[in-house]
Amino acid sequence: NLFRQNEIRIGVMPTGRLNAITDVQGVKVGQVTIVQGDSVRTGVTSILPHGGNLFQQKVPAAVFVGNGFGKLAGTTQIAELGTIESPIVLTNTLSVAAGIQGIIDYTLQQPGNEKVQSVNAVVGETNDGYLNDIRGMHVSKAQVLQSILQADTGVLAQGNVGAGTGTVCFGWKGGIGTASRQLPANLGGYTVGVLVQTNFGGVLEIAGVPVGQLLQKYALKDELNHTPDGSCMIVVATDAPLDARNLERLAKRAFMGLAKTGGIASNGSGDYVIAFSTANKVPHQPTATVLPVQYLHNEATTPVFMAAIEATEEAIINSLFAAVTMKGKAGRTIEALPKQEVLELIKNYKRGKAQ
Amino acid sequence: NLFRQNEIRIGVMPTGRLNAITDVQGVKVGQVTIVQGDSVRTGVTSILPHGGNLFQQKVPAAVFVGNGFGKLAGTTQIAELGTIESPIVLTNTLSVAAGIQGIIDYTLQQPGNEKVQSVNAVVGETNDGYLNDIRGMHVSKAQVLQSILQADTGVLAQGNVGAGTGTVCFGWKGGIGTASRQLPANLGGYTVGVLVQTNFGGVLEIAGVPVGQLLQKYALKDELNHTPDGSCMIVVATDAPLDARNLERLAKRAFMGLAKTGGIASNGSGDYVIAFSTANKVPHQPTATVLPVQYLHNEATTPVFMAAIEATEEAIINSLFAAVTMKGKAGRTIEALPKQEVLELIKNYKRGKAQ
Amino acid sequence: NLFRQNEIRIGVMPTGRLNAITDVQGVKVGQVTIVQGDSVRTGVTSILPHGGNLFQQKVPAAVFVGNGFGKLAGTTQIAELGTIESPIVLTNTLSVAAGIQGIIDYTLQQPGNEKVQSVNAVVGETNDGYLNDIRGMHVSKAQVLQSILQADTGVLAQGNVGAGTGTVCFGWKGGIGTASRQLPANLGGYTVGVLVQTNFGGVLEIAGVPVGQLLQKYALKDELNHTPDGSCMIVVATDAPLDARNLERLAKRAFMGLAKTGGIASNGSGDYVIAFSTANKVPHQPTATVLPVQYLHNEATTPVFMAAIEATEEAIINSLFAAVTMKGKAGRTIEALPKQEVLELIKNYKRGKAQ
Amino acid sequence: NLFRQNEIRIGVMPTGRLNAITDVQGVKVGQVTIVQGDSVRTGVTSILPHGGNLFQQKVPAAVFVGNGFGKLAGTTQIAELGTIESPIVLTNTLSVAAGIQGIIDYTLQQPGNEKVQSVNAVVGETNDGYLNDIRGMHVSKAQVLQSILQADTGVLAQGNVGAGTGTVCFGWKGGIGTASRQLPANLGGYTVGVLVQTNFGGVLEIAGVPVGQLLQKYALKDELNHTPDGSCMIVVATDAPLDARNLERLAKRAFMGLAKTGGIASNGSGDYVIAFSTANKVPHQPTATVLPVQYLHNEATTPVFMAAIEATEEAIINSLFAAVTMKGKAGRTIEALPKQEVLELIKNYKRGKAQ
Repeated sequence: NLFRQNEIRIGVMPTGRLNAITDVQGVKVGQVTIVQGDSVRTGVTSILPHGGNLFQQKVPAAVFVGNGFGKLAGTTQIAELGTIESPIVLTNTLSVAAGIQGIIDYTLQQPGNEKVQSVNAVVGETNDGYLNDIRGMHVSKAQVLQSILQADTGVLAQGNVGAGTGTVCFGWKGGIGTASRQLPANLGGYTVGVLVQTNFGGVLEIAGVPVGQLLQKYALKDELNHTPDGSCMIVVATDAPLDARNLERLAKRAFMGLAKTGGIASNGSGDYVIAFSTANKVPHQPTATVLPVQYLHNEATTPVFMAAIEATEEAIINSLFAAVTMKGKAGRTIEALPKQEVLELIKNYKRGKAQ
Repeated sequence: NLFRQNEIRIGVMPTGRLNAITDVQGVKVGQVTIVQGDSVRTGVTSILPHGGNLFQQKVPAAVFVGNGFGKLAGTTQIAELGTIESPIVLTNTLSVAAGIQGIIDYTLQQPGNEKVQSVNAVVGETNDGYLNDIRGMHVSKAQVLQSILQADTGVLAQGNVGAGTGTVCFGWKGGIGTASRQLPANLGGYTVGVLVQTNFGGVLEIAGVPVGQLLQKYALKDELNHTPDGSCMIVVATDAPLDARNLERLAKRAFMGLAKTGGIASNGSGDYVIAFSTANKVPHQPTATVLPVQYLHNEATTPVFMAAIEATEEAIINSLFAAVTMKGKAGRTIEALPKQEVLELIKNYKRGKAQ
Repeated sequence: NLFRQNEIRIGVMPTGRLNAITDVQGVKVGQVTIVQGDSVRTGVTSILPHGGNLFQQKVPAAVFVGNGFGKLAGTTQIAELGTIESPIVLTNTLSVAAGIQGIIDYTLQQPGNEKVQSVNAVVGETNDGYLNDIRGMHVSKAQVLQSILQADTGVLAQGNVGAGTGTVCFGWKGGIGTASRQLPANLGGYTVGVLVQTNFGGVLEIAGVPVGQLLQKYALKDELNHTPDGSCMIVVATDAPLDARNLERLAKRAFMGLAKTGGIASNGSGDYVIAFSTANKVPHQPTATVLPVQYLHNEATTPVFMAAIEATEEAIINSLFAAVTMKGKAGRTIEALPKQEVLELIKNYKRGKAQ
Repeated sequence: NLFRQNEIRIGVMPTGRLNAITDVQGVKVGQVTIVQGDSVRTGVTSILPHGGNLFQQKVPAAVFVGNGFGKLAGTTQIAELGTIESPIVLTNTLSVAAGIQGIIDYTLQQPGNEKVQSVNAVVGETNDGYLNDIRGMHVSKAQVLQSILQADTGVLAQGNVGAGTGTVCFGWKGGIGTASRQLPANLGGYTVGVLVQTNFGGVLEIAGVPVGQLLQKYALKDELNHTPDGSCMIVVATDAPLDARNLERLAKRAFMGLAKTGGIASNGSGDYVIAFSTANKVPHQPTATVLPVQYLHNEATTPVFMAAIEATEEAIINSLFAAVTMKGKAGRTIEALPKQEVLELIKNYKRGKAQ
């Protein structure tokens, strides 16, 4: 990726092997991009905490609400029970119902779930209505199901794909982004991976360089004629053995990473973080009422927190560097970040190669 | 109703005219009951805070989660913005997507909403899967829409109707129930109305009489062979001018009313309270950034709180007295509360007519 | 106790051996009653989750706020870290500082804590200012320390003692109350113990009998000339291996027990529940970053929840039955519940011996 | 101030006249610095939302907990009632009791409060125990009272003063800092002022320049031999007419400002934001139960949010630029930020004068 190729660094910690959420062992991502005609620019991105039966083997999880102008489904049950039991589906604001339906269909059909009568579908969204005919509701439950079924480990596409197909970030084309951090062995060697769907505004900073100001494109610049509204969905995965309480704390740190990119969590923004850990599974039908588990002591959480801040900041920037100019609804165009110009700016500010 | 006819009273406050949520001026309720063949026993109940365009004229609102094993859609935006902008739809657990879709269709189609691209659909549910073929997902978005469109003020049906068609409460047939309380003029004269969808367990008490124990039917009686799981959706309406913060407090009191019926909020229960006030509308497009409003001072909230406790307790009991025996899925039958026997018990315990 | 002697029962579960919070193995309670001259009527009640060094061996814990008009110290750290590291001290509203100071002195002085520089003191309160010269602040840190040092297992005094010396409940003399429930072996055999400091109002019910109405003494009876304000501090102990998340859920159930006594959580009430588990200790200085622990699965929590509801309801009633008439500040008197009359009423309503 | 003198800018909005919390009309700050002998390095900083009787004329307020390893007193009542009724006192971790006592004494003694029996004291803290003999508890309630009584509008001291006397930030000497932002007239013209007590760690960035990395001093650098623990208390004042709900949202944005300085909210950090608005007063004894008020519509909050982010970031940096090297307990020294070196670094990164 252009960003890393130019030796620009965010933070002080090393990335995982792929610099992606899939660096967390077992995590799978599937994406369906829906581009039709002049005005359909949307899609679905599904994140699977593991490749098995998620309903039968739930994972500890938590949600942090940065700003709750959004329709994220599934939050209260996650908070109550401390687990996620479904794929996490990201899509557009008016397609949450399709997302829920797709997850339910998927779950009911899985072998072993023949008697399941209740599924807590986790569906996040941002509003791609500037480029996409969102009122047309062009995401079907079949496409949601497809995104789940084709989810895979390994490298994943970023930018104008899946749920990021039609999104806008800091006035430029946003989309799906991902990044990861890996702790040194003496801090546990854990991996934290992040995936974002970027659709928000503010005053863009890249590795501390005030790119938004330099390009004269930022929130409230012309006194509200440019709205910063929008949203950011953030999914954080880790193999650190965190329980739900510490995952909520981890989720809050991802929001700090968003802040570092210049995001301002404007009134109209739906900024949510969903965090889960793959280290302990929570069986739907436990063999005993008391379960032995292993959890990280509070005192050992700080490096994991720091990794989430860095990985989120970089995942957001990666979404901008991966995205390309997109034409959509009503003849509108959202330009990609002018990457060469931005790289020059960054170098001029002593970051990256020329430093 | 049998309960009041027998001069059994819950609490110390007078009811509103209809003893129903529709005693709150402007509130409308619409219900679609879906009974097909041997195993479809479900439905939809919609509550409209007012009869106008809810998206354009939102109402202050809040949610309290008693126990969050449920899929209530729309909570985080209510918490963030302090408003509800859609009908409140109640249905079964696996039909939340249909509920959301029906609300979105309704909202997008309303005159004045031609440019709306984001709708926070509020959809609650309980699990009617004991009597209903819930995996069949027999609620359509058209039926949701129908329940909204036929919503009306005035008397409303209780028991085996709408979202209460297939529910079970304290081991007896539950369903939709409603009740209200009206404050005396010197306490503001406000009305609090409650509607419940009862599908939960515990140790039933009616007006303090230990009916569950007397009938030998209660939670954990035979050490977990009778599961108390289930859920209760509670909607509280008031014309008292409460802001979102005080509505959240009001919602918490409704949960106290549930406790008084013997509900125990078991692990598997999705017990939610949605509270709204009709006194102040919040315009989607305000004419000014600073809005003059009138809110009740904290010090004047206690009588309103007490009304919510009483009305919720009675609404739950009313759901039991209104419900009738229902046969459903897999040849199962859930008996209605044996009303004459229960009335005798209550009299024997010095409540009601014989007192 | 008069209540049990008359064979009145609350709920369906058996009590622990002492029907007290100290039925939970290791829990200690210490109380200092401060009655001086005509107008000092206050005190301190301390609850120790175990008899060892609480700072070095913390216990999982959580707080639920029923109504937050109160000054409970220590809540945010409990929520963040999921533990309590100090005795829990109850006293009067204006003596919270003395409570904190007493806890800090105690903690800093304990062997092994020579380097401790931070202590999260947990101090709850209710306002005994009707009978007590609360503005005089007659609780000293030395008395707080004394209550901690003399804490013991076994039977504990109830009624006008410790932090309950000057409190008022449902218009009658309140005070300290305690109760417990024990689960059958096949549900885990766990014990739940509750201690309350009762100082609140509403419409009193005892075992479902509408005592408040029968005695013509209840909230809002004369339209606000009798204020229901006040508070209830509730401490819930259990040896069930609950983590902080499930302890918060347990705490919420105690609030349901309060509701069953007729409490209404009026605007001015500080109703808090502090719940802790003695099953897993959380070391201040862990020997490893990942700790093996054993926690109860969500699915096994319901009986523990139900025990908390019952024990809280009974602990409140016990505080009323144990309390005696008290004269205090400004020549005021608060009468004890007229016990014989109430027992007759209860019998007349088919509860208790004559049933 | 060196920072602004060198034309370094944080954000895009103009400051208020003094670039201080006292730019919000009526807000007063009082500080008592306690330096005695070799090892007492502590103090008190009090913030008064207005100069009148705060108990009788409360202000709308909210708290956001960034990381709750701290002892902030008063949070649950603020959340429940939506108001602050006392000065906000900042001090050290083990002196919270003195802070509460000082506030209570102050409040009980104020004319008009002769009958007050309940005060919700708001006391925040950070742990200055590295330089200060914190176990000696050298802050008295008299000094707390003094800080309140001498509170004033206008310019206020920053750095090693008051509650910031002994604090450490990013490994350098921290302390008290302040800053403000003023919105343009067409966005309401509101002022947002921030005061911070900085005592936390992370990877320092100043206006985006990676100062912590350049100076080789940052969290986890030597793999946990340098602990990033600590805390940050943040107080946000505004004259924008926000209600408690929107003040909580505002408080959350201040935490984003902390993130932009490189703070990581480590496990051991007590990072709290207290936000209040001076626009509407809430009378303790209202003349009517329904009060007409004027609140900002949700849609107009974004610029106020952005101002809080910028002002918090700058207030933290200001605390570092104002602080000077301090010797304290056990012969320890904490160096001031090497200001000239840092200014050179910043210029070299194209910020400030030479740009």
